[in-house]
Amino acid sequence: MTFADRLADAVKQHGTLCMGIDPRVEMLPKEFHADAAGVEAFCLKVLELVRPYSGIVKPQAAFFEQLGVPGFAAMQAVLKRAKELGFVTILDAKRGDIASTAQAYAEAAFQTWDADSLTVNPYLGRDSIEPFLTVARQSVPQRGLFVLVRTSNPGGGMFQNLPCDGQPLYRHVAEEVARWNDECLGECGLGDVGAVVGATNPKELVELREQMPRVWFLVPGYGAQGGTAADAKAAYRNDGLGAIVNSSRGVVFPFKPEEANWEAKIVAAAKQAQAELRA
Amino acid sequence: MTFADRLADAVKQHGTLCMGIDPRVEMLPKEFHADAAGVEAFCLKVLELVRPYSGIVKPQAAFFEQLGVPGFAAMQAVLKRAKELGFVTILDAKRGDIASTAQAYAEAAFQTWDADSLTVNPYLGRDSIEPFLTVARQSVPQRGLFVLVRTSNPGGGMFQNLPCDGQPLYRHVAEEVARWNDECLGECGLGDVGAVVGATNPKELVELREQMPRVWFLVPGYGAQGGTAADAKAAYRNDGLGAIVNSSRGVVFPFKPEEANWEAKIVAAAKQAQAELRA
Repeated sequence: MTFADRLADAVKQHGTLCMGIDPRVEMLPKEFHADAAGVEAFCLKVLELVRPYSGIVKPQAAFFEQLGVPGFAAMQAVLKRAKELGFVTILDAKRGDIASTAQAYAEAAFQTWDADSLTVNPYLGRDSIEPFLTVARQSVPQRGLFVLVRTSNPGGGMFQNLPCDGQPLYRHVAEEVARWNDECLGECGLGDVGAVVGATNPKELVELREQMPRVWFLVPGYGAQGGTAADAKAAYRNDGLGAIVNSSRGVVFPFKPEEANWEAKIVAAAKQAQAELRA
Repeated sequence: MTFADRLADAVKQHGTLCMGIDPRVEMLPKEFHADAAGVEAFCLKVLELVRPYSGIVKPQAAFFEQLGVPGFAAMQAVLKRAKELGFVTILDAKRGDIASTAQAYAEAAFQTWDADSLTVNPYLGRDSIEPFLTVARQSVPQRGLFVLVRTSNPGGGMFQNLPCDGQPLYRHVAEEVARWNDECLGECGLGDVGAVVGATNPKELVELREQMPRVWFLVPGYGAQGGTAADAKAAYRNDGLGAIVNSSRGVVFPFKPEEANWEAKIVAAAKQAQAELRA
């Protein structure tokens, strides 16, 4: 079963919400230790709580790396438990390197950490994507990539929006993503090379959807970052597939550390996000 | 003492050779186990062997990450030992993310792993560099960055060479690097935001040296990747400072796993590389 089809199944069953796991020790409920063990225990609990409302989780490698060696043990435990619970996992690590180094990153993501997919950075060009693709397609089951195309951060346009040969840089990246993606389509009609596309500019989103008709979009910024379910609409295809919408803090940390009813608040936030995105 | 001045001191004492530590388990001498413990033991030995010939080491995070949790313990041990031995360290991880996520990566690099500097990817724009800079400049001692500008891999030009507003994309990145760098110059006249610049095209190198007169260049590709000491010449300033030249496999793995005299071969390769780059 291709990565695209597994993602399509997750969306059909649970909707388009992707749960971003960005564990900041200072935001944990006060009953957890502010260390890697506390982060691991909290994240494992979150996975169980949100399971009915989402089929996709995206752990953010930076927050685990910040906790050093035990942080990576926590990340591994979270990815393992997510897999056991049937989530499709996206390791958000934005890796990018070349040749055998890119291959080592790919093997780290898909073998060592056993993630279903990985976010990658396109700046280094073709040879920074192909080794990831090779490892992803040789894996059993096949894995996927999400390439940064147009990010929604305030400074994201500094280089991504530069006009190059008549169109902004990110459209050139989108063109290559569509090409890599279309080499390996699943039964759902989508492929294994997704695109990270912010929802801050609806016109851009419409254009990118047209340019990459068979590409899965990972849309960040929903919830705490101010994006709405309506903003993401243009990312979907007519069949309702083609995009997943990430919420991190909005669903995982909808409470203050001293609040006792944090579990109920996470469940309520996940349920609401799922419903909003389905509407 | 600024990062730039520490780098200048290392270059004045030991020359411009940067030792790239890219440990592949299958290339270790056969007396080492093909695992993280073997990698750690081998790398610690390499650091001692090459100490007279180089003042700068650059561990490649990908090869440690591939070995999982114990791989990161090995990476931490290598960085710690390198610091004890007086090397300036460059953690080659090509990180890139935004806002608090970029800050987490910066804290991972400069606090958790205690590296002197980090390679970063510019695709996400201003907000993907500034959090790294903030953490680097607040650290004691101050740390540095090396931003990917023009990489030497065959597909590196796919996006980096796109003509944008009259000049290739990488020149736009170089412009921003020069601006960030010039905010914080050391006594040597160079700053804390370096540039990764391949030596494959001498004309490009000359232009970039002119465009970024106070920026440290990290030049990859010397040795096993086919670059020569002459290729890198245009990267230096007239004062002989301004560039360090990386060799990974050429100096760290100049032997076959079954060869007994690997220590002597590493010493000979490091000595020769130092001399070639000084000539």
